[in-house]
Amino acid sequence: MTDISPLFGRVAIIGIGLIGSSLARALVEYRLAQEVVCADRSAEACAKAMELGIVATATTDLADALEGSELVVLATPVGSFAEVGERIGPHLRPGTIVTDVGSVKQAVLRDVGPHIPAGVHLIPGHPVAGTEHSGPESGFATLFEGRWCILTPPPAANPEAVAKVEEMWRRVGSKVELMEANHHDRVLAITSHLPHLIAYTIVGTASDLEESTQSEVIKFSAGGFRDFTRIAASDPIMWRDIFLNNREAVLEVLQRFTEDLTALQRAIRWGEGQHLQDHFTKTRAIRRGIIDARQA
Amino acid sequence: MTDISPLFGRVAIIGIGLIGSSLARALVEYRLAQEVVCADRSAEACAKAMELGIVATATTDLADALEGSELVVLATPVGSFAEVGERIGPHLRPGTIVTDVGSVKQAVLRDVGPHIPAGVHLIPGHPVAGTEHSGPESGFATLFEGRWCILTPPPAANPEAVAKVEEMWRRVGSKVELMEANHHDRVLAITSHLPHLIAYTIVGTASDLEESTQSEVIKFSAGGFRDFTRIAASDPIMWRDIFLNNREAVLEVLQRFTEDLTALQRAIRWGEGQHLQDHFTKTRAIRRGIIDARQA
Repeated sequence: MTDISPLFGRVAIIGIGLIGSSLARALVEYRLAQEVVCADRSAEACAKAMELGIVATATTDLADALEGSELVVLATPVGSFAEVGERIGPHLRPGTIVTDVGSVKQAVLRDVGPHIPAGVHLIPGHPVAGTEHSGPESGFATLFEGRWCILTPPPAANPEAVAKVEEMWRRVGSKVELMEANHHDRVLAITSHLPHLIAYTIVGTASDLEESTQSEVIKFSAGGFRDFTRIAASDPIMWRDIFLNNREAVLEVLQRFTEDLTALQRAIRWGEGQHLQDHFTKTRAIRRGIIDARQA
Repeated sequence: MTDISPLFGRVAIIGIGLIGSSLARALVEYRLAQEVVCADRSAEACAKAMELGIVATATTDLADALEGSELVVLATPVGSFAEVGERIGPHLRPGTIVTDVGSVKQAVLRDVGPHIPAGVHLIPGHPVAGTEHSGPESGFATLFEGRWCILTPPPAANPEAVAKVEEMWRRVGSKVELMEANHHDRVLAITSHLPHLIAYTIVGTASDLEESTQSEVIKFSAGGFRDFTRIAASDPIMWRDIFLNNREAVLEVLQRFTEDLTALQRAIRWGEGQHLQDHFTKTRAIRRGIIDARQA
């Protein structure tokens, strides 16, 4: 009864976690696919996906899920991409589009690229969206609404395939930006990877305190710490893989961060009030930029 | 028409910023004072407070505000406490209660304590509440609802004066906890001061990037960075003073944090996935604690 025809026939989602299950829900809700199926190496996750009714079929057999799929979405942790690529390669038929939702993008070209047969289109993507929750039960169809999705197609990518993936993200509510994988990884290292690393660190530091202090840290967490614990509750495997696969860019911004922190530490030690005040004033400008860009 | 009599006659709030103006509003709204007046060294802030109608009178003359006040609340940046203490001392009459809302507590006893005449009760306090906004126009009466307020009365403090300050915070909706000033400063160093220092640092690091990258950092800030910018938009003078006045405790937790960050940095450099995963899993427990304590 809608005049918008589905973008895809069958869509296979590989890995039915928070992002995979959210996309599955959105594809169904916005009628962007005739059928959505999923594969997950966890039989439990498959059963959950079926129980939730978010896919037509769920299987632990990759080949079954790929059969007849026009679009394949990799939504497993980035560290599994080399293996998943190797296993899906032989089952991909010409014309199929393969995309992903990983938080690092050079690694996709490196790990999945070599397994993509001629005539199959690899269009890597990264929806900048998520929550601190994991698993198929945590997903929801509106997760991508108003959020950015960054696509990093290689220079020789098929323009029609790029346009189709772009259209899919737009129809689930996202704003789409195209950039080079290398540039993506540098930008996200500062906007996402470093913040997560720091949040994981400080929460770890707190959890090493003696137990009595720890319970007070929890009690009085509203002073700023609480925001870090939310970030540091994100999926451990996903984040392990992000850091291992964006090593250079993360180490580079981490070095800058450490230098800056050391300078502030020195200012505190020597009582350099003006230095602190100047720094704390400067950072307000970035916040204003975010509010102006309606990203707050 | 209420059967709860006001706790105080006249209350003087010194410094009518976010916290001072919120408390002024709450004291009026919950009828905890017969009259609320304020003093602020900024004539502009005084005019704003009058325009907003949150105080009966606003003055730049400290002595005027103290005249006849049963309770005096210091709500200026902590770095001004020594000077403010010196100036209010001669005008305090026996029986007056002096409290504050500063984020560090040993410094209050050190800087204000010596100026308090015999028979005047100094009961330092810290409402663990706030937003990233500053100034009298940013306050609101419900700011303290459901939040903790920590009181750090010295051992010899008058129990009735402590009870009255405690009662005031309870009636504006807070939960109250008593602890030693020294312990307060150590706990808050990790739950609030270190998170702010780190947020200020990372936002500063981002603002030093070349301009093209900076606009993308703003654009894609939803990946974690955004939460840091909110924290790093807090009042620069207030935070300068907190770091200068809780130097030892901040430097101590900062040292622990830096060691932990260096260990994670090393794990990333050498590809030690298991180390990263173990750390990222451990931090989830603290988040669960916060959710269980209903502080999330």
